[in-house]
Amino acid sequence: MSRPRGFVVVTGSELVRGDRTDLNGPFLAGELLRLGVEPSRIAIVGDDPAELESALSEGLEADLCLVSGGLGPTHDDRTVELVARAADRELVVDEPLEGEIEAISRAIAERLRRPYADFAVGVRKQATLPQGALVLGIAGTAPGLVLETERGAVVVLPGPPPELKRLWPRALETAPVQAVLSRARVPERRVLRFYGASESEIARALAESGGEGDGVSATVCARDFEIHVDLFADEEGREQAEKLAAGLRERAGRHLFAEDERPVEELVLEQCRQRGLTLATAESSTGGLVAARLTSVPGSSDVFLGAVVAYANEVKVAELGVPGEVIVRHGAVSAETAAAMAAGARERLGADVAVSVTGIAGPGGGSPEKPVGLVYLHAEAPNGDLARRLTLSGDRDAVRGRATVAALHLVRTLLARSRDEAA
Amino acid sequence: MSRPRGFVVVTGSELVRGDRTDLNGPFLAGELLRLGVEPSRIAIVGDDPAELESALSEGLEADLCLVSGGLGPTHDDRTVELVARAADRELVVDEPLEGEIEAISRAIAERLRRPYADFAVGVRKQATLPQGALVLGIAGTAPGLVLETERGAVVVLPGPPPELKRLWPRALETAPVQAVLSRARVPERRVLRFYGASESEIARALAESGGEGDGVSATVCARDFEIHVDLFADEEGREQAEKLAAGLRERAGRHLFAEDERPVEELVLEQCRQRGLTLATAESSTGGLVAARLTSVPGSSDVFLGAVVAYANEVKVAELGVPGEVIVRHGAVSAETAAAMAAGARERLGADVAVSVTGIAGPGGGSPEKPVGLVYLHAEAPNGDLARRLTLSGDRDAVRGRATVAALHLVRTLLARSRDEAA
Repeated sequence: MSRPRGFVVVTGSELVRGDRTDLNGPFLAGELLRLGVEPSRIAIVGDDPAELESALSEGLEADLCLVSGGLGPTHDDRTVELVARAADRELVVDEPLEGEIEAISRAIAERLRRPYADFAVGVRKQATLPQGALVLGIAGTAPGLVLETERGAVVVLPGPPPELKRLWPRALETAPVQAVLSRARVPERRVLRFYGASESEIARALAESGGEGDGVSATVCARDFEIHVDLFADEEGREQAEKLAAGLRERAGRHLFAEDERPVEELVLEQCRQRGLTLATAESSTGGLVAARLTSVPGSSDVFLGAVVAYANEVKVAELGVPGEVIVRHGAVSAETAAAMAAGARERLGADVAVSVTGIAGPGGGSPEKPVGLVYLHAEAPNGDLARRLTLSGDRDAVRGRATVAALHLVRTLLARSRDEAA
Repeated sequence: MSRPRGFVVVTGSELVRGDRTDLNGPFLAGELLRLGVEPSRIAIVGDDPAELESALSEGLEADLCLVSGGLGPTHDDRTVELVARAADRELVVDEPLEGEIEAISRAIAERLRRPYADFAVGVRKQATLPQGALVLGIAGTAPGLVLETERGAVVVLPGPPPELKRLWPRALETAPVQAVLSRARVPERRVLRFYGASESEIARALAESGGEGDGVSATVCARDFEIHVDLFADEEGREQAEKLAAGLRERAGRHLFAEDERPVEELVLEQCRQRGLTLATAESSTGGLVAARLTSVPGSSDVFLGAVVAYANEVKVAELGVPGEVIVRHGAVSAETAAAMAAGARERLGADVAVSVTGIAGPGGGSPEKPVGLVYLHAEAPNGDLARRLTLSGDRDAVRGRATVAALHLVRTLLARSRDEAA
């Protein structure tokens, strides 16, 4: 029995015009893979009806077609109408749904101080669904849908990624989607996360460990400046997957930081939590990105106290207590300043653990001695500290992004080391 | 005469599996638009030959088909072979090209200390082209190609973005592509950026102003919690575009904040710079995101001094001078605390202008009186201040993201107003 085939259709004229990079296609394709459905294509189309209809007709030839976008109230949001046509279904108004959407729209009308009449047409449109469609819930004023098709099912989801991710799990629970998944062979998935190794280094370690095949498919990809390895094993591939994982641990173990999907900021918070330590950051070139990553984790407030973003030298001195002469003698971008920033953050914010970042993000500000991409990191904990000097390539965003990830991994390493010493 | 139609085919199994986000599709689509060719679709397919061939066959029905990836030396890099089949051309070995690729491969073989024999097959494969193909140059060991088609031309480019961008300009100089571009009409592009209005509100204003057609196409899209309107006008559409822009200014002028593509953080920095004002932020629930946005702009250091991320109440008191009794009486998430945070940031960081954010990002921490999504903002400048209370929907990331954008727009509004008063 071959795997069911999946097809993703993403619609949005700003996406097909290159104004914005689509994130829903990769997310949904990854979900298909995870569920044992083969992602065969991602088609990105604009709001031209002919284009969208032809993409949808192709999509409906797959066992599971996932559609994102084009659910808005305006005339050029045609996804639902064209899904109905491609699936050869009548369009019917869902009265209860119309009631729900009307309630939401009346609230909006009130807030905007506009007559509800302005919204009525859009509400009616958004409550008009293909015969037999299942409603997954409402995103904004638009319903997500599942519709059974000849081959299997089509799932229609809103374009905004958070809304799409919110409704997607509900689609998985519907009978038409379950019917497709019952024909899928869910591969066993193992993840290994590496930091500090190159993609080709890890790819070589994978090949030397036996590589793909024998019921195992593997993906090695650089993401967020880490190397993520995913192993997907069928029944008969379980053993080979175990062998590959063991081989990777043996060959690249010193770069391996996790065998689950928790991001590094979550690991750092967990390390602190387990030992009752509080955390703070002191940031110059990253401008708050490290703090933003840490506070993106729900519940981070029980560990993370705060940060001082010391962009100007006066702030480094006044708010972090960096001695002026250290900046004068060694420069704001130096190991000495980084160390003083970390110490200052611990003292001023009353934190047990602190990490600091100072560097030159560019494009300006570089010099022969201190080129763009030069970054100093310093992590300090009750029982020790760790310093790091980086020379990063790439544009301003890349330098800031890499420095942010490096800072988080530096704290992780420091905390892991002191734990091992404690043990 | 209608615009020539463009079609982008991107191949790579890591892309269709969602392991990596494709960047070539958006780049090439944007290029098509810029050149006056209508980008109709971006198709992302893996290395399955049937999928790739069907995508290429569709692509060749467009006037200009741009293909990226699948040019490597191995058996599963089938793009050239399948382009030849889709275009119904013989495959022939290009002897001079084979010589070039051989030279490169011999050097690689030497570096890797491997016999050249290991490479010979791959070299022959990569030098085998569709009859009549024009070679654009070599990326790694793979040639980029242009081939005339029934409808126009197909351009075959390497997958690595830097290599693709290097060979792309050469494709534009070839006769088959020039022939297509001679039929293209380069549109004039106007942008209008709105904040505080809903997508449907702006769409309605656009419709009421005359809407699309008459040589003007328009996109209205919600991006980063703003509404972005792009108008694309052909020769005969210039006047209509002007009329639409004027209509939008009249109907939604109070929400219009820019008629260029500069992001709000850049506008805020520019407002400060023009008047010699320095800027700081005080952030709780956004955890540094506002500072990170401001410092993402090159040269922001001449305006932005720094930030205090006061996640814990102790930090609000100690580092921002928020009176403890204000927090006790009104709570950390209150208009009073937000005001004290902004004042504290100005005083402690010595900044002329400061904006503060305190709120409940969720998923936990909400209460009936203070639900998840409740956010207080406060902006303070030498000649006045502005406060805002928001109740935001969405998950933690959405609440933080919306609050960040709202904070930036609050400062922009305050500075714009005080400028008008000054004037």
